[in-house]
Amino acid sequence: MNQSEFKTSLMRMASDVENALEKFCAERDNPQKNIYKAMRYSLLCGGKRIRPVLALAVADVLGVRRDTVMPFACALEMIHTYSLIHDDLPSMDDDELRRGRLTCHKQFDEATAILAGDSLLNKAFELMSCAALHMDNPVYGLRIIADVSYLSGTEGMIGGQVTDLESEGKAVSEEILKHTYSCKTGALLKAPVYIAAEAGGFRISANTLDGEFYEKYPAAESFDENVQKLLRYSEIIGTAFQIKDDILDVEGDTELLGKPVGSDAQEDKSTYVTLYGIDRCKEILHEMTEEAKCIADSFGEKGDFLREMAVYLLERNN
Amino acid sequence: MNQSEFKTSLMRMASDVENALEKFCAERDNPQKNIYKAMRYSLLCGGKRIRPVLALAVADVLGVRRDTVMPFACALEMIHTYSLIHDDLPSMDDDELRRGRLTCHKQFDEATAILAGDSLLNKAFELMSCAALHMDNPVYGLRIIADVSYLSGTEGMIGGQVTDLESEGKAVSEEILKHTYSCKTGALLKAPVYIAAEAGGFRISANTLDGEFYEKYPAAESFDENVQKLLRYSEIIGTAFQIKDDILDVEGDTELLGKPVGSDAQEDKSTYVTLYGIDRCKEILHEMTEEAKCIADSFGEKGDFLREMAVYLLERNN
Repeated sequence: MNQSEFKTSLMRMASDVENALEKFCAERDNPQKNIYKAMRYSLLCGGKRIRPVLALAVADVLGVRRDTVMPFACALEMIHTYSLIHDDLPSMDDDELRRGRLTCHKQFDEATAILAGDSLLNKAFELMSCAALHMDNPVYGLRIIADVSYLSGTEGMIGGQVTDLESEGKAVSEEILKHTYSCKTGALLKAPVYIAAEAGGFRISANTLDGEFYEKYPAAESFDENVQKLLRYSEIIGTAFQIKDDILDVEGDTELLGKPVGSDAQEDKSTYVTLYGIDRCKEILHEMTEEAKCIADSFGEKGDFLREMAVYLLERNN
Repeated sequence: MNQSEFKTSLMRMASDVENALEKFCAERDNPQKNIYKAMRYSLLCGGKRIRPVLALAVADVLGVRRDTVMPFACALEMIHTYSLIHDDLPSMDDDELRRGRLTCHKQFDEATAILAGDSLLNKAFELMSCAALHMDNPVYGLRIIADVSYLSGTEGMIGGQVTDLESEGKAVSEEILKHTYSCKTGALLKAPVYIAAEAGGFRISANTLDGEFYEKYPAAESFDENVQKLLRYSEIIGTAFQIKDDILDVEGDTELLGKPVGSDAQEDKSTYVTLYGIDRCKEILHEMTEEAKCIADSFGEKGDFLREMAVYLLERNN
């Protein structure tokens, strides 16, 4: 598989995701129909769908059925979208554009954007729980719900948003920056591996059921060697994704990005670029991509898509 | 059981809920610790805890263990709290006081309040899924997650917030008002019955598993006669609760309420009072309370708490 074949394959998978999202978040004709319009405006924007596509690709590698994984993959995209809607709000990042279109609160209003975000988060769990009830082994689905809620919560994505907001306008340590990135971007990019593996009955996080259940497990472990490798792959992709974002904010093209270049510097934000300098960032990015390709190659032909995905994320310009 | 004994019992149960909430939403010492402070500020306020207490009381009636129900009851309180935090935001109801204290965005800031709300919603599902994994039959817990997510989502509570916001400053039909109330207040007051009954293996919503899973079931049905009666009880309580709120907004005491009296009229809001007049409202409230007491009495001594709860909600002054 070369990059061109990869892109065709990626577009087909993204289109499958789009169709599934359209179905899982269908319009309704009832008194609250406007909230569906706002949810769909932000959700059905034809984005790259990296997270759900990654879930499908990992499912392929592990031999798990794509249609078992699809509802969970779509729920993940709903969570990602809700986080963008809330992140864009005036009291947060105050952004007017997202993917070249007006942000949700600009297209509708602030109250609607808050509720549309809430609705998408809620809908993600509605979708996952219904999907789990339909699985041959509902406990597999339940484990996904437990892990996705952890990864998207205060110890995962939201935690990263918190430290990110608190870092605004001040120099932060390497430790805090890495923590922020690992939570804010990394957690939801690891989730696809959890979803695909757990849907297939693979166990991740050996301690899930240990101790008091409100004491959650910090470590992502798996007894299965392939799943371990895929978790590492997703970790690398998560970090590389963020480094690339930071580089693009310095060297990117406003039109291609769909948002203004240089906003990090303008907001005095600490990034990988301010921390290591742009040349070292490019080196790290290259090294990480090589490691991801190496993991993908260890799966032989089945790893083709994941290898090209690593290259694609490295070379992307938006 | 008289009202005084009921209140003692209610306080003990509310205190058990408070302790459980404290445990399920413990402080953390990590870079994002401030979000836990904001969540806990709004969550651990020593409120009446009507929803979780109702879940425990229904569990008692059905002979389901309270400790099985408790995490789900607490998750419901987290959902209720997140909805209050977001409802109070400047772009929504713009409230400064809640239960006599500063609202979350006034105590902290708007971004923190949005994220604290998101965190509590997310945490509710984290808690429920972990609790479900620990049940003898995890599918019972999974059914609760599916139903709670439905009741708190766009066809439930959020749906009610949407039509409520859209109704602001204009006269609305009886149909829309009832829809709003049934979603906004009613859905989360029905949830305790779903939680307690399903935790005990009772089936509600016979169609849960029928059809395509993203087509949700609108009707709350149960094959068990007792569960049917309890669902009706919770429906009445939900409506009576809202009528009482509307009456209190006209005749209540600002200090006892912890919020200004007359705000509905000032905002030109349609309420039960504007729809039926205050005398008719009091009649309806009385009739509903009698029906609720009648259902409770049909359970004999086991229904004592629920009977006195109906009286309590009727006579409350805040």
